[in-house]
Amino acid sequence: MKLPKALQGVIEGFEQLPGIGPKSAQRLAFHLMRLPEDEVNAFAKAIFDLKSKTLICKNCYNVSEDELCQICSDNKREVSLICVVESPLDLLAIEKSKYNGVYHVLHGVINPMAGIGPDEIFIKQLEERLANEKFEEVILATSTSLEGEATAMYIKTRLNELYPNVKISRIGRGLPIGADIEYADENTLRDALNGRVNY
Amino acid sequence: MKLPKALQGVIEGFEQLPGIGPKSAQRLAFHLMRLPEDEVNAFAKAIFDLKSKTLICKNCYNVSEDELCQICSDNKREVSLICVVESPLDLLAIEKSKYNGVYHVLHGVINPMAGIGPDEIFIKQLEERLANEKFEEVILATSTSLEGEATAMYIKTRLNELYPNVKISRIGRGLPIGADIEYADENTLRDALNGRVNY
Repeated sequence: MKLPKALQGVIEGFEQLPGIGPKSAQRLAFHLMRLPEDEVNAFAKAIFDLKSKTLICKNCYNVSEDELCQICSDNKREVSLICVVESPLDLLAIEKSKYNGVYHVLHGVINPMAGIGPDEIFIKQLEERLANEKFEEVILATSTSLEGEATAMYIKTRLNELYPNVKISRIGRGLPIGADIEYADENTLRDALNGRVNY
Repeated sequence: MKLPKALQGVIEGFEQLPGIGPKSAQRLAFHLMRLPEDEVNAFAKAIFDLKSKTLICKNCYNVSEDELCQICSDNKREVSLICVVESPLDLLAIEKSKYNGVYHVLHGVINPMAGIGPDEIFIKQLEERLANEKFEEVILATSTSLEGEATAMYIKTRLNELYPNVKISRIGRGLPIGADIEYADENTLRDALNGRVNY
């Protein structure tokens, strides 16, 4: 049996998303069919508007509704402190921690295996911002994966050469809140011991 | 920071789907943002058309593009054999097994805890079909959960009363293909032993 075309289209749409296999895609499509029509249509409209109404901030490359994002156009932020992140999702996570500086979104990490070099992500644009804006400190908040570390190291080397007076820092490493020492891996524990603070 | 409205709408749309939490919803929405615009728009259009262009077959309650579904309007099917399933997804799964009879989709199971009685699913309509169409056998293919078994039992009792000449059968139970006896649970093994066949 061939499924109705619209239903098949929705299933294929879901299938192309990460982490959703053919079975889940079917289940999601049938779930949508059981929702009220206005909810389903609102979802369709949001997807339709997604690309056309969502811009990238021309200053920090965060997602935005206008040319400048909400953070870059907010005059209550500490503009001397900039936090470099991999993606807008990372920025969102850091926003919840009450950080009050500004950001720079790289949109990726250096990953030679996937053909992504420093020029494929927004590193040049970060260097330009350091020339034009007065930053006292750059916090490198790329993830602690191999690629995230390599990207942080690359940016640190570049910025040290270009702007030796700007302080560069890396987000702290150690045990997350609520962690059991017994179950922490050896590298995390090594970082936690090295990063011990006076108490 | 508030996310752009279209992006927030897509995230909320994903969040209301089963098995997708707030974090996954964010990840999926950002993934969509990176896809080419025509793919995203095709997905949006499919969702938009989903409810308006997908009908329920007036005979067997399968999903359909027309009043009668592809199976009910196919004159090569064995119309004396009817398979009763819980959902169109179950029908799809059984179709792949090369079953060639027709179907009846209940759209649910009897579940008193959730307030779903026999009248909330399409059981009456099945009874009516048995009066109008000439079936030799009804295969009850509801799932082997508690509710699925109760639903099968209810239908069997009703049909036995109303149409004592129609054969009622239940899908076979036992070990699935590729199963290790060592890891099978005791109830499955009991069913598999009781359902042994000459070899």
